[in-house]
Parts: sequence; structure tokens; C-alpha cells
Amino acid sequence: MRPSGRQTNEMRKVSIETGVTMHAEGSCLIKCGNTHVLCTATIDERVPPFLKNSGLGWVTAEYGMLPRATNTRMRREAKNGQSGRTQEIQRLIGRSLRAGVDRVALGERQIVVDCDVIQADGGTRCASITGGWVALKLAVQKLMKAGDVISDPLVDPVAAISCGIYAGQEVLDLDYPEDSEAGVDGNFVMTGGKLIEVQMSAEGATYSRAQMDGLLDLAEKGVAELTQLQLGAVS
Amino acid sequence: MRPSGRQTNEMRKVSIETGVTMHAEGSCLIKCGNTHVLCTATIDERVPPFLKNSGLGWVTAEYGMLPRATNTRMRREAKNGQSGRTQEIQRLIGRSLRAGVDRVALGERQIVVDCDVIQADGGTRCASITGGWVALKLAVQKLMKAGDVISDPLVDPVAAISCGIYAGQEVLDLDYPEDSEAGVDGNFVMTGGKLIEVQMSAEGATYSRAQMDGLLDLAEKGVAELTQLQLGAVS
Amino acid sequence: MRPSGRQTNEMRKVSIETGVTMHAEGSCLIKCGNTHVLCTATIDERVPPFLKNSGLGWVTAEYGMLPRATNTRMRREAKNGQSGRTQEIQRLIGRSLRAGVDRVALGERQIVVDCDVIQADGGTRCASITGGWVALKLAVQKLMKAGDVISDPLVDPVAAISCGIYAGQEVLDLDYPEDSEAGVDGNFVMTGGKLIEVQMSAEGATYSRAQMDGLLDLAEKGVAELTQLQLGAVS
Amino acid sequence: MRPSGRQTNEMRKVSIETGVTMHAEGSCLIKCGNTHVLCTATIDERVPPFLKNSGLGWVTAEYGMLPRATNTRMRREAKNGQSGRTQEIQRLIGRSLRAGVDRVALGERQIVVDCDVIQADGGTRCASITGGWVALKLAVQKLMKAGDVISDPLVDPVAAISCGIYAGQEVLDLDYPEDSEAGVDGNFVMTGGKLIEVQMSAEGATYSRAQMDGLLDLAEKGVAELTQLQLGAVS
Amino acid sequence: MRPSGRQTNEMRKVSIETGVTMHAEGSCLIKCGNTHVLCTATIDERVPPFLKNSGLGWVTAEYGMLPRATNTRMRREAKNGQSGRTQEIQRLIGRSLRAGVDRVALGERQIVVDCDVIQADGGTRCASITGGWVALKLAVQKLMKAGDVISDPLVDPVAAISCGIYAGQEVLDLDYPEDSEAGVDGNFVMTGGKLIEVQMSAEGATYSRAQMDGLLDLAEKGVAELTQLQLGAVS
Amino acid sequence: MRPSGRQTNEMRKVSIETGVTMHAEGSCLIKCGNTHVLCTATIDERVPPFLKNSGLGWVTAEYGMLPRATNTRMRREAKNGQSGRTQEIQRLIGRSLRAGVDRVALGERQIVVDCDVIQADGGTRCASITGGWVALKLAVQKLMKAGDVISDPLVDPVAAISCGIYAGQEVLDLDYPEDSEAGVDGNFVMTGGKLIEVQMSAEGATYSRAQMDGLLDLAEKGVAELTQLQLGAVS
Repeated sequence: MRPSGRQTNEMRKVSIETGVTMHAEGSCLIKCGNTHVLCTATIDERVPPFLKNSGLGWVTAEYGMLPRATNTRMRREAKNGQSGRTQEIQRLIGRSLRAGVDRVALGERQIVVDCDVIQADGGTRCASITGGWVALKLAVQKLMKAGDVISDPLVDPVAAISCGIYAGQEVLDLDYPEDSEAGVDGNFVMTGGKLIEVQMSAEGATYSRAQMDGLLDLAEKGVAELTQLQLGAVS
Repeated sequence: MRPSGRQTNEMRKVSIETGVTMHAEGSCLIKCGNTHVLCTATIDERVPPFLKNSGLGWVTAEYGMLPRATNTRMRREAKNGQSGRTQEIQRLIGRSLRAGVDRVALGERQIVVDCDVIQADGGTRCASITGGWVALKLAVQKLMKAGDVISDPLVDPVAAISCGIYAGQEVLDLDYPEDSEAGVDGNFVMTGGKLIEVQMSAEGATYSRAQMDGLLDLAEKGVAELTQLQLGAVS
Repeated sequence: MRPSGRQTNEMRKVSIETGVTMHAEGSCLIKCGNTHVLCTATIDERVPPFLKNSGLGWVTAEYGMLPRATNTRMRREAKNGQSGRTQEIQRLIGRSLRAGVDRVALGERQIVVDCDVIQADGGTRCASITGGWVALKLAVQKLMKAGDVISDPLVDPVAAISCGIYAGQEVLDLDYPEDSEAGVDGNFVMTGGKLIEVQMSAEGATYSRAQMDGLLDLAEKGVAELTQLQLGAVS
Repeated sequence: MRPSGRQTNEMRKVSIETGVTMHAEGSCLIKCGNTHVLCTATIDERVPPFLKNSGLGWVTAEYGMLPRATNTRMRREAKNGQSGRTQEIQRLIGRSLRAGVDRVALGERQIVVDCDVIQADGGTRCASITGGWVALKLAVQKLMKAGDVISDPLVDPVAAISCGIYAGQEVLDLDYPEDSEAGVDGNFVMTGGKLIEVQMSAEGATYSRAQMDGLLDLAEKGVAELTQLQLGAVS
Repeated sequence: MRPSGRQTNEMRKVSIETGVTMHAEGSCLIKCGNTHVLCTATIDERVPPFLKNSGLGWVTAEYGMLPRATNTRMRREAKNGQSGRTQEIQRLIGRSLRAGVDRVALGERQIVVDCDVIQADGGTRCASITGGWVALKLAVQKLMKAGDVISDPLVDPVAAISCGIYAGQEVLDLDYPEDSEAGVDGNFVMTGGKLIEVQMSAEGATYSRAQMDGLLDLAEKGVAELTQLQLGAVS
Repeated sequence: MRPSGRQTNEMRKVSIETGVTMHAEGSCLIKCGNTHVLCTATIDERVPPFLKNSGLGWVTAEYGMLPRATNTRMRREAKNGQSGRTQEIQRLIGRSLRAGVDRVALGERQIVVDCDVIQADGGTRCASITGGWVALKLAVQKLMKAGDVISDPLVDPVAAISCGIYAGQEVLDLDYPEDSEAGVDGNFVMTGGKLIEVQMSAEGATYSRAQMDGLLDLAEKGVAELTQLQLGAVS
């Protein structure tokens, strides 16, 4: 009944390739089915003004999509400015990644995570968070190898997965054909078995608490699988 | 233990005054404690291009804050463009209100709901949704009285309330002193006993599923109270 | 013959309510008939760069209109940037208020006066100046009570009123139905019986020096009445 | 006592050279002392949307300054957008020129008057209005010669002059050294012996009605002289 | 003597992988040494307004760089708008590709070529032209297979290569270490043995006609090699 | 066969009038036929941030066109921002002028050259470079006279001329009627008999190396003539 033939609780095939660009301190290309996101982490020894002399680190994120990452070409944001949707997504990525960082251990420096969607088929913000954590971890490993950071500021991986109600059923990891039909869908960000962010929206629909519980169950399963892949990629 | 002395499950005093401006088709001033939002609804017989000749109506929202609505003056958005936060809020308000509208019954017209924060003390987006629904309902009543709309497109009120974890406890309806301290907080939008939107974020923290459940319980209680006030205001 | 039935030299009913917001150092809601403007004054201990270490104070103003303050909804300036008209008005308000300030007595600090039109029915810039002075005065009184300012930098109130030629007659304080018909109209800003600013424009019309004199007579009468109301509001 | 040695009621030497560019339908270079403005008029057979099928013509103006027209170089507006001051000036020029146009006689077409300051020494907006009228007249003469306009829509010239209070004295036609010192100054736009616009501002000062009268006397004298020069230039 | 050890007339290793994204009508990933550019071609049945009903086709290009494509992170253009450099490059790419298109044969449709730099090491605009032609050709092949285009509008490949004077010697295909040192460098675009565009710039240096001739010789050699690779990729 | 009747190797009549504005440190009005450009040079004792404390000087340029410099009125860039074409031109002017400057001899200061096109008939960027050098030289002479610069940082004039292929023939110094027809045209910037910049573009056409050689011959002839005029203007 799912267009892809997947089970309701079955994720798409996910792969994470690291070290894909020569310049960035950390990088990976994450593929969640046909959604491909290039994530890079840049270490910047300067922090934003409000953190100067605080001893605390910062992690922030930016998100973009190549114009033809989608089925029909989108106008290039460099020509038109970032849309509200783009800003909302990059605020979510940054907030999610920061929830998994010990900012004292990171020390007074900033890491900027860029998530650029090369090809989109639903779930780009979740792939960005999951892949963004890998890029971030690789950059931190470089800092630790150099002795610039002593205690690891990243304990558990941060991962995210979408869930929604498609054709009346709770399903895990919506692809674009499902996403464009689902009246209810959202994203769950977790770390170490705990929740960081829940965003569950309905467009022209509603959902019950029982359905919300079912979606949370699916999300826990999906994030557990992603976490294993993340740990494999950075070890 | 709450700065205001309220119980953990106790909302601030809420009042909704209707008919507060002479020009708008629907309007109210909603006060949730010291958070005051002026909501107006404007009927526009033109719909956005993607709905032309569809027979379907549309509801959209815009949100703003007066520069000195806050404790320290904020830069005027008219000079700087809408921030990502503002755009995110107004997208949420519009999506939430649309979830409670029968767009066929509304007919091919648009209603624009403007939510302008006169004074802010936490919870402005929730007050905007709750008050915005009242302004919307009043505008629809005007359309029905004129015979332009026959069947009421608004059945159940849409209302929203914030919840969060403050000082380790789940609390209802955070004011600004709580909001600025809480590591976990979010908003619940509901209609007719069902969920429309859940946005629960952690900044530098996490939360368990048990806490999530406790917050959902609080939200259901708060929304039920708001719904009674909304119904009183529009009858 | 005036749409409102007023005499040619009769102002609309004016009220000034002070202390209307909890955050601002000075505030009032001025109502000139159906024109309602919320004025707030914010004390900022930093001055603009060109005044650093000069010992001189500064007063500046910003002006805005809620989108549905008018009969038909206007596009939100936060989305489109301030129009030339808005910038012209806020420059006038700032210049007018500064003319009534002893900038040495104020000391090296800035006061920002925000004038936001809640409901518009003609004469919003004059109401902003008149109400803006009240908010400014209240903020200065706070500075004097705290001992931060010793000698009062605000001696006489600054007030403004519109005049114009409507249906061939010189009239005082145009409301919107008159303003949209009048070929000649303008604003007079005064303090202590002297002029600060005269702006008298014709659109597709002209006026004689005799008419100009008649308009000045009306303005003097109107400003005298406003001044009494201002003094009442701040004492 | 004037820096230039002029009498208080003495204008600078004014010259108006016509036909200075090969492309524009009307053009002149007006020199008011060291203030040099290039004015061009462009005929556009399309009118703004609000005039479509009205049978009425329109005249509008744009104003600019070359970056090094002034004593110290100003930032190029093409890089930064038009300032509030620029917009205010071009609105004044357009409004002033329209007051002297019979829009029925002009017919449904638009004339755009561009006023670009090549060299500035005070009074650029007045020179723009006075020279702008000449360019406009020349373009209209072309339309009449071609038989596209039958009855002359421009009867009396529109001219403008600045006045102010410098060193305690009312003076005519301020140059930059006077303008930057004067606490009170403004512009008078007239046509056919009648007023179109009065803008008299004080910055940190005030002025009496008697002074206002004196300034009006000076303006009438100056405009009469400019009108003769305009008529000479276009005949 | 070249940092890479290459001969003065030796290009970097070039590879062109086609069909790299699922959505675009034509696509390739071109790698010129460490410079990697993703090129996609989008067919749009609408043409720009100036070509409506002309029967002529159009090809245009846009260019971007991921923020961390470079050694130090660049600010994201979506946040700041396209730089002058970016606009200059995308104008060059579009002009170059159009020179190799029979616009009558293409028919009244537009093809948009997006060139996004994934990793930069000098020569990104040349790689964009060379790879952009491949993406364009693949899209055209799709149109021909569908019978929408009958006669091939692309006869000879368009290719581009950089040349410059490095350490006093004329060299082919500068990489970033050379490019940042060279006082003279530029780009040559060719098709079918003819020149389309020559852009040879000196920064703080000059060059003789004899050197110009030497650079042209190198360019001809490089373009011939690229052309073979392009033909291989699209056959 | 050329619309103007000129020989293929014949430039338009060129004149350079210096000292045309009272404020700028150097200025000229260059007329190349009907193309008229006002060039001013402004000395700024501050350098861009990347040159602070380097001891090196900087020369930069800005370019603009009055809206009615052209046959049909163009939209004012102050209202719309600088086009890609404008930015490309001003980058070329700055780069060209810098190639003729000894930046050590200039000392740590910046000279800004503004080139504003009063009337356009083809070749505005070349006229800007040629006239810009004259304005620059005059400003430098002022610095040398004041003893602020000891050794002349400008040895040979920098001049530029356009060439192209019109009606199958290589021609020198295209005017607008030729420029709008030519499939191949470009600009050559030279100093002291050497090349600084070659930009030769084809739009929907190509050219051979033999033609390129012919164009270079023409450019050398043209630049030699311009150089004599420049030297005459500044001596």
C-alpha cells in the first residue's frame, strides 16, 4: 500500500559516505533512498558576539537546495533570498545539533554545519540532521586529535526521522510521493533515547493522541537504526 | 515555585474583547496575562493564484510585534524585513487556522488574519492562534449574515497553549520569565479534542516520552478552557 | 457641510491615555476622533555615532501602521520595507520633537519614540507628534525622578494639527473623508506659540497667500487646545 | 553678511541651457550658482495602472545625485537603495509639476522627469523643480508639434525657491554654506502667482508668523524672476 | 616548476560522469582535477518575454558555489545575494553555450543550465561551460528522442579552458595555487576550432601580444582534448 | 559601409575636458562621439580593510548611467540595485586602472573613480577607462603638489577601445548602431604598448584567430591615439 512497497515501519535504505570533500574539517554524503544531502562542518575559532569570552562553544547550521534537486526546478535562493521554509529548517537543524553538544567541552569556538540537498525525495531536513551530526563529529575528532579539545563534547548521536499518517496508517520515513499526500506528518529528533524536538503538523486534518503515540513508537525504531549507521560512519 | 505563584496546571487570566477596530470585518484584543495581541480578519474576494477557479477558500495569517512590545526595544521589522522567527510563527498560525476551516463551505475567497502583538510576556504565538480564530469567526459570521456563505465553515474553535518543563516540572502556559529559563517548551494546537500541531523543542536539553505525555495532558486542559472563552466571545 | 457636521474651526474629540504599556519608559494612546495611535518612548543610553562624546542628547522617531488600521488592508511594511511616505512621516516626527528639546539638558542619551497607528481616520502624523511628545515627556520625567536628568529639557509641548481647503473652505483637523477630497492640505507643528514646521501641499490645485493666512489662524487655535490636553496628561 | 556677499533678497545667477542631450524628448541643464542639475523629460505612452482608460495624463519625477556632486563623496544610491531624503524630494518634484498640468489636455500618457544633480551647492530640489518644468515643457511642445496634444496642458511655469533664516535674517536662495548653518529653512513652490507647496522646517529652532510672512515675500520675488528665465528658455 | 608537477601545456585529469541526478533532463558531474561541478539542464517550455512567438529557443545558465567548496568557508549567497563575480560568471556561461546553439532548430523553448560547484580548486567557470554543454546536449537528446526537436541544434561541443602566466611562463589550466599567484590569467571558450570568448585579465601586471599568442596556442590544445571527452560522454 | 561613414580603422572624434566639477580632486568630461562620460576621482585617506597597515594604495571604480542616457529610458539603478552588467563594468574599470598604478608609490590611501554616463552611444566602458585615468592622474598630481606623494605612481596612461566584426569586417570603436548589430565585439585595455585586458565576446557567432589578430592591430592603433589625447589633457 505504500508507493514504494515498504512496510509501515520500514525505513528507506540509508548510506553515509564520509570524507567526500577535500576542504571541510568534516564531511559526509548521506543518502536516504533518493534523498541525497552533502553535509560539511567548518571550524571557526571565532564565536558569535553574544558568546565572546564566555568559554562556551556554538554550533549552527545552514541549509540549501540545488535548484534542480527537485522534480521541477526551483528558483535559486541566491537570487531571491532564503525562503521562510529554508530559515525554519536551518534553525531546526542548528537547535537539534546543539542539544547533543557539551558546549563547555567544545570550548569557545564555532562549528558551522552546511547541509546542501543535491537530490530531494522527501525527508531532507531529517537527513540533514542525521548527516550533519556525522560531519560535526568528524570535525570534533580532528580537534581532539590536534589536542585543541580534550573531552569529547559529543556523546550520543543526534538523529532525526519523519513519520506521518498516510492512507490512514501511521508510517515511518515518508518519501516524496507519501509526503505530498499525507495530511499529517512531522519530524522527531532524538539523542540517547530521549526527545529533542517533536514537530507534528496537520494540513487540513487532525490527529488523535493515540495516533501521536503510534508515531512516537515508529520514530524510536527509526532513530535507533540511524544511530547505528552514524556510529559506524564515524568510527 | 512558579514566578507568578500559579499552579503547574494553571493558565494566566485570559480575556477576549471583540469589535475593537472600526475597519476590520472581524477583530478582537486577546489578553493572556500581560501578553496582549490585536487580531483582525480581512475578507478578500480574491484567492491566491493556485486556487483560482477551484471553488476552495483560503485562510492565511501575518504576525508582527510592535518594537516596544518587549522589555527591551526590538528593531522594527519594517526596516529590516521579517526575521526567520516571524515567518515561522505566521506560517504556524495560518496552518493552524486552516485546519479548522471547511474550505468548500467558505467558498472561493480568502481571509487574512493579522496578529499584532501590542505587549509581550510569553506565549504570543498561542495567543495569536486563539485570538485569530475569534477574529476569523466574526468575519465568517458577517459573511453568513450577508448570505455570502451558507453553511458555517468553522465548526470547532482552534486554540493553542504553550507548555514546558520549568525547574524540572511540567507547567502550563509559560510566561516570559519561565519561557526564558525553560530548556524544553513548545506549543500545542488543538480543535475538537484532536491535535493539529505539536511543536516541542529543547534548547540544550532533552525530554522523555513520559514528560511528553504529561505536557499533552496539560495542553488538553488548557485548550479546553480557552475553547469556552472563544465560544463565549463569538456568541 | 463637513461630513462630520463639525464647524470649520472645530477639532475632533481628543483623548490621551497614559501608561498603556508595561515595558516602555513612557507611553500613551492618543485618540483624535477615530484615529488611534499608540506612542511609546524608549530610553537608550547610547547615542548615534555622530554624537559620541558630544554631551548632547538625541530624540528620534519611528512610525508604522498596522495593516488593517485602514479601510482596506495595506501590505505589511515588514514584508516590503518602509515606503517613502512612511520614511517622510517619521523624519517629520523626529524633527518636530527635537525642536522642543534642550539637548544639553537631556544629556548624552537617546530617546526613541515609536508611533504605531492602531486605527486610521486621517491626521495620523499630527496625532503621532502630539502623542509622541506626551510619551517623551513621561520618559523624561522618569529620568528626572531618578536624578539622571536635572534640568527639564522639555519646556513647552510640541503639538501638530492638520488644516486644509475642503469644499472651498478652510477647515481645521481633516478626517479621512475630508482628506481624500481636499486639493490642499497640510500640517502645522508648533511649540510655545511659535512655528516649527509648515507643510502645505496642493495636489492638482493651488492656494493664495490669503488662504495660507486663514489656515495658519486655524492651526494656532487647534494647537492651543491640544497643548492644554497634553499638559493635563503629563501632570 | 552673507558668505557670498549677496543681498538678503538676491538670488544666485541662474542659467538654463536647453537641448543638452540627444535622446530625451525634453532636456535642460539648469545652473543656480554652483548647483547644476540635468533635467530630462521622457514621454511614455503607458500610464500607471490606476489611470488605465481614464483619459488622464500623469507626470512623475525621479531625483538622483552623482556620488561626487557634493563636497565629500556620498555612497552611490544604486548600491544602497534610495534614501528617505531622496524619495521625499522626488515625491515633492512630481507633486509640484503635476499641480501645473492640465491632465485632461495632456491625454492618457505619462511624462517622467529625471533630475540628476551633477554638482551640488544647496537648493538642489528647487533647481530640479524649476529646470524640470522646462524639460517637461519642451517635451510637451514636441507632442503638440506632432499633433498628439492639441491644447497646451502647461499654462504657467512652475518654479521653486528656497528661503531661510540665516544669522537672524530672512534670506532668499540659500547656498550650501548658508543652508548648513540655518536653523530654519524651506522651499516654496509657486505657479501663476499662487502657492503649490510650502515646506518650512526648523531644526533645533522655531520661527514666528511674522518671519513666515517675510519669507513668503522673498519667495514671491524669487519665483517671479525664475519664471521669466523659464519662459525665455522655452520660447 | 608548476606546484602540481604538470608540464606547462598539460591539463589536469578530467572526467565527466553523466546521469548523476534523477530529476534533471540532462546532468553530469565534471571533475577537472580537484574542481568538481554538478551541471544540470532543465527544459522549460516557456521562453523569456522578449522571445514570445519568435519561434526561437533560448539557453541560459546559473552558477553557484557551495559555501564550503573553497578552502575557507564563503558566506552563503542565498543569505547575501549573488555577488558581482557570480553574476559575471553565469552571464559568461550562458553566452558561451548559446554561441553553440542553433536557436531555430531548438524551437521556442528554454533550457536552463545550473552549474553548482561542489569543490573548487581553480577553473570553475571553465569546468562549468564544458560540463554545462554536456548536460545541455543530454537534454537536447531527450527532446530529439521524443520527437520534440527534429534537427540537432548542437553541432560542435563548446568547451573552455583557462590559461595564464605563472612564474613567467605561459601555462595551461591553472589550479588554485597557480591562479592565486598568476598576475595574468584568463579563459578561452571555443567551438569547432573557432573562438567564442576570450577574457584575459591582468591584476597589477601586463602582457605582450607574443604572450597572448602563446596563450592562444595552449588554449587550442586544451580545448581539443576537452572536446574529445565531451563527445565520449554524450555518445 | 559603416553607418557613420567612418573608415574601418577610424575612431570617433574624442575630446577630454578637465576640471569640470568644483568638488572632486580630479575630474574630466570625456566625449567619444556621442558617448559622454563624467569621470571624477576622490581621494580617501582610508583604504579597504584588507590593506590596513600594508603601505599599499588602492584604486577602485564605480560606474553608472543616467536613466535617460540611452535611447529609451532605463529603470534607475538606485531603485533596483546595480545590474550584473553594471557590476561587471565597474570591476573592469577598477582592475584596468590598477594595472597602471605603482601602489607602493601611491602610499596607503584609496582613490575612488566614479564614471557616470551622461549620454550613451556605444563604448561607455572604454570611455570610462580612458577618462577615468585622466581624473585619476589629476588627483595624483594634486597629491604630488601637496607633497603627500613623492614619486609618480602613474607612469603610462591606461586607455581602452572597443573593436568588433561588423558586416563581416573588423572595425575600430563601435558606436551604438554598430554595437547592436555586431555578432562579435569586445574591449582592449592597454598601457605602455602592453595589454592589460582583452574581452572579446561573440553572441550567436564565432571568430577565427586571424580575425582576433586583426582586431588586436586595430586596438593598438586606437589606443595609441587615445594616449596622446590623455597626455595632452593632463599636461
